[in-house]
Amino acid sequence: MGFDSITCNKLVWCTLIIALWTCTLEGSGHLMSSEGLLPPPKTLLEDPLITHQRTLVGGGPSNQYQRSLASLDRPVMGNFENSSLKIMEDVKAGLRYLFQTENKWTLALSGGGSLAMDIILDNLVEPGDVVLIPTFGLWGVRAADIVERYGGIPKKIEAALGSAFSLKEIEDGIVTYKPAVVYITNGESSTGVHQSLQGVGELCRKHYCLLVVDLVATIGVIPFHMDSWKVDAVFSNTQKALGSPTGMAPISYGTRSIEKITSRKTKPKSYFADLKNNWIRNNYWGISDPGAAQTFHSSYPILQIYALREALASIATEGLAHGWARHFDATAKLYTAIDNMTTIEGGSGVTYFVSRAEHRLTGTVALLPPKGLDPKELMNLIRQMYSIEINIGIGPMTGKIIRIGVLGPNARPDIVDEIVSAIKYGLKNLKK
Amino acid sequence: MGFDSITCNKLVWCTLIIALWTCTLEGSGHLMSSEGLLPPPKTLLEDPLITHQRTLVGGGPSNQYQRSLASLDRPVMGNFENSSLKIMEDVKAGLRYLFQTENKWTLALSGGGSLAMDIILDNLVEPGDVVLIPTFGLWGVRAADIVERYGGIPKKIEAALGSAFSLKEIEDGIVTYKPAVVYITNGESSTGVHQSLQGVGELCRKHYCLLVVDLVATIGVIPFHMDSWKVDAVFSNTQKALGSPTGMAPISYGTRSIEKITSRKTKPKSYFADLKNNWIRNNYWGISDPGAAQTFHSSYPILQIYALREALASIATEGLAHGWARHFDATAKLYTAIDNMTTIEGGSGVTYFVSRAEHRLTGTVALLPPKGLDPKELMNLIRQMYSIEINIGIGPMTGKIIRIGVLGPNARPDIVDEIVSAIKYGLKNLKK
Repeated sequence: MGFDSITCNKLVWCTLIIALWTCTLEGSGHLMSSEGLLPPPKTLLEDPLITHQRTLVGGGPSNQYQRSLASLDRPVMGNFENSSLKIMEDVKAGLRYLFQTENKWTLALSGGGSLAMDIILDNLVEPGDVVLIPTFGLWGVRAADIVERYGGIPKKIEAALGSAFSLKEIEDGIVTYKPAVVYITNGESSTGVHQSLQGVGELCRKHYCLLVVDLVATIGVIPFHMDSWKVDAVFSNTQKALGSPTGMAPISYGTRSIEKITSRKTKPKSYFADLKNNWIRNNYWGISDPGAAQTFHSSYPILQIYALREALASIATEGLAHGWARHFDATAKLYTAIDNMTTIEGGSGVTYFVSRAEHRLTGTVALLPPKGLDPKELMNLIRQMYSIEINIGIGPMTGKIIRIGVLGPNARPDIVDEIVSAIKYGLKNLKK
Repeated sequence: MGFDSITCNKLVWCTLIIALWTCTLEGSGHLMSSEGLLPPPKTLLEDPLITHQRTLVGGGPSNQYQRSLASLDRPVMGNFENSSLKIMEDVKAGLRYLFQTENKWTLALSGGGSLAMDIILDNLVEPGDVVLIPTFGLWGVRAADIVERYGGIPKKIEAALGSAFSLKEIEDGIVTYKPAVVYITNGESSTGVHQSLQGVGELCRKHYCLLVVDLVATIGVIPFHMDSWKVDAVFSNTQKALGSPTGMAPISYGTRSIEKITSRKTKPKSYFADLKNNWIRNNYWGISDPGAAQTFHSSYPILQIYALREALASIATEGLAHGWARHFDATAKLYTAIDNMTTIEGGSGVTYFVSRAEHRLTGTVALLPPKGLDPKELMNLIRQMYSIEINIGIGPMTGKIIRIGVLGPNARPDIVDEIVSAIKYGLKNLKK
């Protein structure tokens, strides 16, 4: 039998195999016709994608740094190639600078800040662990709910909405409840309140508990020094002062956190979250133990990683201290304008929600509207006339406050002028 | 006291308040200086963002539909404005078409397919629930791990890597284990195997269990009809045949799933996942009960939602049936080329990993390399010479196979020609 005839036989055989695949596949025959299909939605066939240029000053999302925005038209690369991994290394370095830490376990999760809250607590809380949660708004309430789901015992100490805790109050809580973990929201975005971290790290070391801090509203806005302040785990999001799109959550675990995680007796509840058993063998972020068997965890959102890399490069190029000062100055300018509005304009009636100045957050400001004014009407009018987006509160404050954020690229004097002008316009035109 | 003097007093008072905020803020004084800061990373200060145009045919991520890619330079809008909500409505409509369902509870989660697996099982599995998992690769193993974490009892039936289950085998499993949920991976991406769904929905109704299907590797590739096939819950990702960036997870729950979820006696473990208590009050997606108190769940990744909307519009415009046929044709062309390579080229030695033709997945093809050839070397050479990205397997197959995917915009004859040409080049040049 010659070569030709073998080839011919094989070709016949191959054709038969393909015919078999064709026949058995659900993709074949009548199933491939559009008969009997639910029709495609008219709205997708006919409507264009309509978007608007906004100045986003509602306290999150903010606008993006120019470099971050520009990175999004870059092509998607493969998960495993060196050019992708190099960008992830850059992100890790940038996040270490941002958090002021040398923690190896510093990376960005796909998913956003709310998911990161779940993930960090799932890893750090074992059933029976007491978690002390100073609660002064939405985020402490949620943290307690999360801790309970993972079998932990949340112990809340509570402050009135619009205020925060003294170091003494936190220490009293620690002494009373002897927690394994203290969970602190550095900036309570629902009320515009700043919780000072001064001395809390030392306190936690003294009492042998871990300190976890939610930096969502404060990272890049006010000074933070993870290592020298002795913070054991932190997370943030990307769409506020980082000036990158929503959808990722930077996270960092210190040595004491990793010790607790690797000596856990129970598995975290979420496979996705599980650092000890899963992330630690994930090679993408280059944080796995060299000897560990590599495994596939999940595909990472490479475009968002480009964007985060470029946002972090913008922050590194400006320098953290300069960025903090810029946020401080923009907020001070906004405060002055609000004060002037209240006084010189003959009393617009806008007042601070946070009465004690030392509790006020930099970057995110919560205001009470004049009597009779619906913040939602103000928000809609300002959006329509100025294309400026403010926020009217979340959680317990929904619809009750005017929330203004000068964050990331928007922490600038000209943006503050724009905001003030828009609010004056709104108050004047909505006056009853 | 005249008006001027009141104003003056107020101004003095305001200045004092700002001074107080300034003094107490951690942002003030020496803390704002860059002294003592860990330095910014050189790599972010000096290196540009380097990316490469790739033809991504490793079976995920794939390249994006042009409209999806183009949407990413659109400006970010606010979370609450009507223009944003309209885009989310479009996404819901597009996903309903994609899944062929009228389910109200159809939306896209921030986070990706691996997270969606966690979330869907967290919602549908209560402690003590038996979950039947036909397991024939990485994803069934992971599903079992997840079910166990949530207190469920995973019951695996197992098939050799490279094969799938008959309806009879699935029915036997159901009869033996009496599961509350049957969890099926429609396309096992680690091995390139297709698990037929024919008859499984009816079976699950007959035996009073829910049918959950992982559509990650198959949605948009082969026919799927959620409603008429009686599937109770599904999820997918966005970076394969949907042709949108990695980072979101479309999900749909049918009536029977929602009944189970709303009558749960225990809370899901993850706050983020919890549909009954949290998502159901989230107004963004317009799926909450009209009377329910609204709450803030999380910020959604609006840019990714633009991209998904545009990808779904591309799919709707082409029509599902046409898209399925296109994937079928591209895969058939690839099969023919592989067969020809094996025979006419005098035996390259590339063989199918999945020996039975009827088990082979459309869109994602797993090949065994010729003896002595390291798939990693082939992947690297092809990337370098052709800028084509193939994959070398994940999970149990890592480094053992050559995985090729013609998915989404890449399911085209010219792309198949490119791939075949690159593989021929690679095999020739790496021949020992």
